[in-house]
Amino acid sequence: MKKERRSFIKKAGLGAAAIGAGIATSAVPVIAKEKKFRWKMVTTWPPHFPVLGEGADLFAKWCDEMSNGRLKITVYGGGELVPPLGVFDAVSQGTVEMGHGAAYYWAGKAPASQFFAAVPFGLDAQGMNAWILTGGGMKLWEEVYAPFNVKPLLGGNTGVQAGGWFNKEINSISDYKGLKMRIPGLGGKVVAKAGGNAVLVAGGEIYTNLDRGVIDATEWVGPYHDLKMGFYKAAKYYYWPGWHEPGTALEITVGKKAWDSLPKDLQAIVEAAAYRSNMWMLSEFESKNEAALEELVNKHHVKVKMFPESVLKELKKLSKEVLEELAAKDPMSKKVYEHFLKFKKSKNAWDALTEEQYQKFKHL
Amino acid sequence: MKKERRSFIKKAGLGAAAIGAGIATSAVPVIAKEKKFRWKMVTTWPPHFPVLGEGADLFAKWCDEMSNGRLKITVYGGGELVPPLGVFDAVSQGTVEMGHGAAYYWAGKAPASQFFAAVPFGLDAQGMNAWILTGGGMKLWEEVYAPFNVKPLLGGNTGVQAGGWFNKEINSISDYKGLKMRIPGLGGKVVAKAGGNAVLVAGGEIYTNLDRGVIDATEWVGPYHDLKMGFYKAAKYYYWPGWHEPGTALEITVGKKAWDSLPKDLQAIVEAAAYRSNMWMLSEFESKNEAALEELVNKHHVKVKMFPESVLKELKKLSKEVLEELAAKDPMSKKVYEHFLKFKKSKNAWDALTEEQYQKFKHL
Repeated sequence: MKKERRSFIKKAGLGAAAIGAGIATSAVPVIAKEKKFRWKMVTTWPPHFPVLGEGADLFAKWCDEMSNGRLKITVYGGGELVPPLGVFDAVSQGTVEMGHGAAYYWAGKAPASQFFAAVPFGLDAQGMNAWILTGGGMKLWEEVYAPFNVKPLLGGNTGVQAGGWFNKEINSISDYKGLKMRIPGLGGKVVAKAGGNAVLVAGGEIYTNLDRGVIDATEWVGPYHDLKMGFYKAAKYYYWPGWHEPGTALEITVGKKAWDSLPKDLQAIVEAAAYRSNMWMLSEFESKNEAALEELVNKHHVKVKMFPESVLKELKKLSKEVLEELAAKDPMSKKVYEHFLKFKKSKNAWDALTEEQYQKFKHL
Repeated sequence: MKKERRSFIKKAGLGAAAIGAGIATSAVPVIAKEKKFRWKMVTTWPPHFPVLGEGADLFAKWCDEMSNGRLKITVYGGGELVPPLGVFDAVSQGTVEMGHGAAYYWAGKAPASQFFAAVPFGLDAQGMNAWILTGGGMKLWEEVYAPFNVKPLLGGNTGVQAGGWFNKEINSISDYKGLKMRIPGLGGKVVAKAGGNAVLVAGGEIYTNLDRGVIDATEWVGPYHDLKMGFYKAAKYYYWPGWHEPGTALEITVGKKAWDSLPKDLQAIVEAAAYRSNMWMLSEFESKNEAALEELVNKHHVKVKMFPESVLKELKKLSKEVLEELAAKDPMSKKVYEHFLKFKKSKNAWDALTEEQYQKFKHL
C-alpha cells in the first residue's frame, strides 16, 4: 500500500500540495524540490582505482549525503559502461551525465585541453589550482569544452609525479636516442624530440612490456601506484622528478543538458564536492607516497636517481618547442598557452620568495 | 495571510502531513527535513576583510546555496558581536554556532592549538592540508578542542607569508638584539629568544606604531594585505621568507551542540563548504600576492630583502627550542608535536624528490 501511495504521489507531480489546497503555497516548493536525480558517471580508471577511482567514489558519496539522496551518482570504472577513452564522448553526447578523468586524454578532440591536465615544466598542484580556480583558467577551460556541450570541474591533483622507471641510466640527453619509453601526451612528444621512441601501452600491459624488454622505460604516477604495479621487479632505476607532469589535474565533467537540468542547490553541491575531491586527492597522494617510496627503497632495493640538471635543461628547451608547435597549429591552444605562460611567470616570481625558500630552509 | 499560514505550519511541526492523513507516510520526512537553521558565525577579522573575511562570507553563501536556504549563516566581523579574541569562547559556550579564525589565537586556552595554525619552520600549505586532512592531524585537532565542546574544520590557508617589514637590515642574528617587533605566537617567542622584544599590537595600530618608531619591525600577512595597510610608507625593507608562518591554516569552528543538532545532509554541506573555502583562499592568495608585490616594488620602490641563510639557521635552532619547551610543559602539545614531527620528516623526504625539484627546475 505504502509503495502504491508513493508512486501515485510521484506521478501526480504536485505531491502533498494536491491534497491540502489550503496550504498549497507553502507545500508546493517543498515537494517539487524533491525530484530525484539518478546519474551515471563513467571514469577513465579501473573500478575503485586507488586515489583516482576512490576519489570518484567519494565524490558520488558526498553528493548523495549533501543532497540527502536527491542526487545519486553511480560510478563506473573504465570499460564497465564505455571504454576509458570513450568517457568524454559519452558525456558530450549525453549517454551519461558525468565523467571523471584527465583533460589530456582528449587532446585529439581539443588540443588545448592538455593545458588543464599537465604541461611539461608547467605548474605544480598549487599553481594549477590557483590558475584554474581564481587565476582565470576555468573560463578558458569552459571555452575549450563548450563546443562539446561539456562543463569541466577541477576534481583532483596527483602532485609532482615520478620521472619514471628505466633500465638504463640517463646521464646525458643523448641517452634518450632510441629509448623506447611508455610516455603519453606532451611528455611523449618531448621524448620523441630527444630522439626517443614514445610508445603508448595500456596500464595493464606496461609491466609485461617492461619485463620482456619490449620497452626500456615507463612513467606511471608515483610510488603509491607504482609499488602496486610491481615495476620494481622489471626496472632498475626510479628517476626523479616527473618534469613531464609536475602537478597533473584531474577533471570531473558534466554534460550541459544534465547540468542545466539540476536545480541551483544541487549545482552548488556538485561544485563543492568537486572542490572537496580536489583537496582530498592531493592530500591523499601527499600523505601516502613517501611510505610507498620507502618500501620500494628499503624492501625492494630500488635505486632512486635524479635526472642530471643538464638533461632537465635540454628537456625543458624541447618542451618549449613542443608547446610552441602546438600553439602555432591551434588558435585555442595559442590563447590558452599565452594565458598559462603569463600566470606561470608571475607564479614563478612569487614562488622564488615563498615556496622555493620553504623547500630550501627545510635543509638548514 | 500567507505569512500566517506558514507560521501556523511551522508551529504545528508536522506541516502538510497533518492535513492529508492519507499521505502522511510519504510527506512527513519531506516536511520535517525543512527545518530552517539560522546561525551566527563570529570571526576574528574585520568585517569582509580581504580573502580571510571574504572567505567567511563565501562559506556562508555556499552553505545557503547548497541547503537551498535551510542553513543561513550570518557572518559578523570581529567586534560586531564579540571581540575578535572572544570568538572561541562564544562558540564554546554556545552563544553563537560558528567561528572563523586561526587556531593559534587560542594558545592561552589550549597551547597545542598552535600546531593547527602555524609552526615556525613547520609545514607549508600543501603539507598542512595533507597532515590535517589525510595524515591523522584532524583527529588530534578534534581531541585538542573536545574539552571545549568545539569541532574544528580546516577552512583556509594563507600560503607562505612574508617575513615582515623592517627599518633596519638583518645581517646576522645579533641584529635581533633589542629589536622591537610586532610578531605574535611562536614566532614571537623565537624573536624573544634571539634577544628581540616581541610586542603585541592590534592590526589597526601597527602602521602608526611603525611610523612613529614605537616598533622597529612588524609582520602581517603578505603583499596583498600589506599593500592595503600602507606599511611601505613606514618601513624601508620587506624581508623574506616568512619562516615563522610557512603555511598558516585558518579554521572554521562549530559548537558541539549546534553540530549535533544538524541533520546529516547539512553536516556534509558544512564540511564540503569548508573544503571549498580552504582551496579558494589559498588559490586567491597565490594568484593575487604577486601583483601586489610588483606594485610595492615598482610603484612604491620597496626594497625586497632575503634573510641571510645564517640567520635562518639560527632562527630555526631557536624555533626548535621554543617547540621543545612547549612540549615539555604541556602533554597534549607533546603528543601533537611528535605526530607533527614524524609527518614533517616524511614530507620533507618526499618534497626533496618532488616540490623541491619543481622549485629548482623553474630556473633552468
